[in-house]
Amino acid sequence: MTAAAIPGPIDPPARLLMGPGPISAYPSVLQAMSAPLVGQYDPFMTATMAETQDLYRGVWATRNDATLLIDGTSRAGIEAALVSLIRPGDRVLVPVFGRFGHLLAEIAERAMAEVHTIETEWGQVFPVPVIEAAIERVRPTLLALVQGDTSTTMCQPLDEIGALCAKHGVLFYTDATASLGGNAFEADEWGLDAATAGLQKCLGGPSGSAPLTLSDKAVEVVRSRAKVEAGIREPGDPDAADFVRSNYFDLGMILEYWGPRRLNHHTEATSMLYAARECARVLLVEGREAVIERHRLAGAAMLAGVQALGLDVFGDVAHKMNNVVAVEIPSGVPADAARAALLEDFGIEIGTSFGPLHGRVWRIGTMGYNAREDAVLTTLAALETVLARYGVPVPAGGGTDAATDVFRGA
Amino acid sequence: MTAAAIPGPIDPPARLLMGPGPISAYPSVLQAMSAPLVGQYDPFMTATMAETQDLYRGVWATRNDATLLIDGTSRAGIEAALVSLIRPGDRVLVPVFGRFGHLLAEIAERAMAEVHTIETEWGQVFPVPVIEAAIERVRPTLLALVQGDTSTTMCQPLDEIGALCAKHGVLFYTDATASLGGNAFEADEWGLDAATAGLQKCLGGPSGSAPLTLSDKAVEVVRSRAKVEAGIREPGDPDAADFVRSNYFDLGMILEYWGPRRLNHHTEATSMLYAARECARVLLVEGREAVIERHRLAGAAMLAGVQALGLDVFGDVAHKMNNVVAVEIPSGVPADAARAALLEDFGIEIGTSFGPLHGRVWRIGTMGYNAREDAVLTTLAALETVLARYGVPVPAGGGTDAATDVFRGA
Repeated sequence: MTAAAIPGPIDPPARLLMGPGPISAYPSVLQAMSAPLVGQYDPFMTATMAETQDLYRGVWATRNDATLLIDGTSRAGIEAALVSLIRPGDRVLVPVFGRFGHLLAEIAERAMAEVHTIETEWGQVFPVPVIEAAIERVRPTLLALVQGDTSTTMCQPLDEIGALCAKHGVLFYTDATASLGGNAFEADEWGLDAATAGLQKCLGGPSGSAPLTLSDKAVEVVRSRAKVEAGIREPGDPDAADFVRSNYFDLGMILEYWGPRRLNHHTEATSMLYAARECARVLLVEGREAVIERHRLAGAAMLAGVQALGLDVFGDVAHKMNNVVAVEIPSGVPADAARAALLEDFGIEIGTSFGPLHGRVWRIGTMGYNAREDAVLTTLAALETVLARYGVPVPAGGGTDAATDVFRGA
Repeated sequence: MTAAAIPGPIDPPARLLMGPGPISAYPSVLQAMSAPLVGQYDPFMTATMAETQDLYRGVWATRNDATLLIDGTSRAGIEAALVSLIRPGDRVLVPVFGRFGHLLAEIAERAMAEVHTIETEWGQVFPVPVIEAAIERVRPTLLALVQGDTSTTMCQPLDEIGALCAKHGVLFYTDATASLGGNAFEADEWGLDAATAGLQKCLGGPSGSAPLTLSDKAVEVVRSRAKVEAGIREPGDPDAADFVRSNYFDLGMILEYWGPRRLNHHTEATSMLYAARECARVLLVEGREAVIERHRLAGAAMLAGVQALGLDVFGDVAHKMNNVVAVEIPSGVPADAARAALLEDFGIEIGTSFGPLHGRVWRIGTMGYNAREDAVLTTLAALETVLARYGVPVPAGGGTDAATDVFRGA
């Protein structure tokens, strides 16, 4: 690259991110990432790590000591949980109700599990008895279940699943990437053994850090496979034969890194730690229930708005996540061109879709920082304009009026 | 957590990080991370990803199309390279000259390789004939060799190894985490097939993003094992039987994500991408050779300074990395208390050590933003003060004088 070709400092265009995530981060989260770095074992650093663990106990609603961050995106968190909890040959049950169920099955397969899936139609969730019947049939070691699957917008009820798993001696893992912070989540009350998330959805941060929490039962499994890596292993350190087939995602070592021993593993991604800490902090300052209610309200307003614009909503609306809605693209509207017009003319991003829904629905998110009245109304006004451009008969101001009514409690 | 217990915004203490890394980031890198987020497939985002790839081609001195970032710390980059290039049962040769050689062996073992190591005394590097003899004996598929191992400060010469590997049909991977940007590195000229790094050393950024580059030969191996994940697989997509035993680190999919297809994989860690881009940008603006020379000069000054303070330097100084020096802790000095005094009284961090060197040497870094005269002189002045406190006979101003002479070219 010649000196003349070297670009200038990063200078992103203004964007209101109203897709299924990533979304615009809280300003204070962006600011936190500019804080100066400290050393990996600086007392301030280890105190900040411990403080962040405690903040996430609040976010997850758990007393789990084993609550920490994986240094990677949300799927790094998923892989860390699955590869550490699944022994090769273990039976794993994955109920699939969208793209991310397939992902859990895929990751479990790569972890050499014997994977069993059950599937339901996109746009639906699983009734509890269907999951129980599958557990009885498959007798899995682990149930891996997505809470909120952005590909379909559905939110699988989890509150009865933990008891079911406990009854059948099954470990219960959930991927709460898309849902955590914007929908009810009770790690302890619901009997979760493992749960993971990302920052880039309702937590209002950038992708790149994955909160994770493990029950004592899950920690036992992880510890039974513990192996301290060569190069820093000391006499008496564990060296299990059925060690985790990943170093980076070996929760046995990661727990020791976050724990009092501070065993050297990766070099903690300090700026992402600051971001993750701030995401949890702003959530707890506002109040966990208040943030979920804000997501509920913004989601309900967006739903009312798109319906008032005459758009059909995809899937079982009663089980929709608060933070995303999928709307059928009206016939005659060029899906990509209309999305591009929103982006280029209004600076607003909404989402396309995967698999069977590709080209058929748009996904509109209201999450994290953007679960706000002005973000909802701006998006609806722009959407109305763009739809009208393509000849869709939209009632003037209909979307924003309906959304405003929801915000006003009318 | 009660509302009263929720901490305030992050507010780190002032620190001059002069250990073996992480080190203080360039101010413009910290600033870049505060830039607003954009969507994952926003034209600005994909253009920024492509631009960042091109910047790293400049950093690595390569024309490799397959030059990208792994979303995780430097060891995530190592694992992505090894797990994607090693098939279970493959013979892998790892010459070990410090802690990070052990790490490569460990990661290769977890990737189910048949791992063969050769070792040399800590503080030494391998002569080329020793590596060649081992290649001839082991006949590995892959040679995994650390360039700069911070645990010993040694820098393994790599310039003749690529030709050796090509001659014997061996893939050549190097871990350049600690060395890239501060020491010569020529990916193409030296015949590297794969190389990975991190931002938190000479590149002057935070941990959390791992630059990686692959030769065409390495890409062929990766592509021969390609498998597009369930949930987004389309007819005709590859689905190799000997797929990579990780989803997150499957370079076959990651290449498609960074390539023109933009296959959905992880959600790119946007803020870390901004950081990585800025690290490469400031390096290329200053000039690759100029940055290496700045590291050479700062390293030489620090070396002269600690020697002038009467400290013994550990290892084969002729093969020391530019950016870190290990000094024997003078007898009678309490290693941890002295380091703590530097940190608490002067806000300066220097490093402790691993394994056989633990408690025996300190490691002092001069890298990235901190490869600067003021950082070197400040550290030497503080070190002199602390050593004097513990009764070490240090010549007043001796360290800083010697370092200044180096900077002045005296």
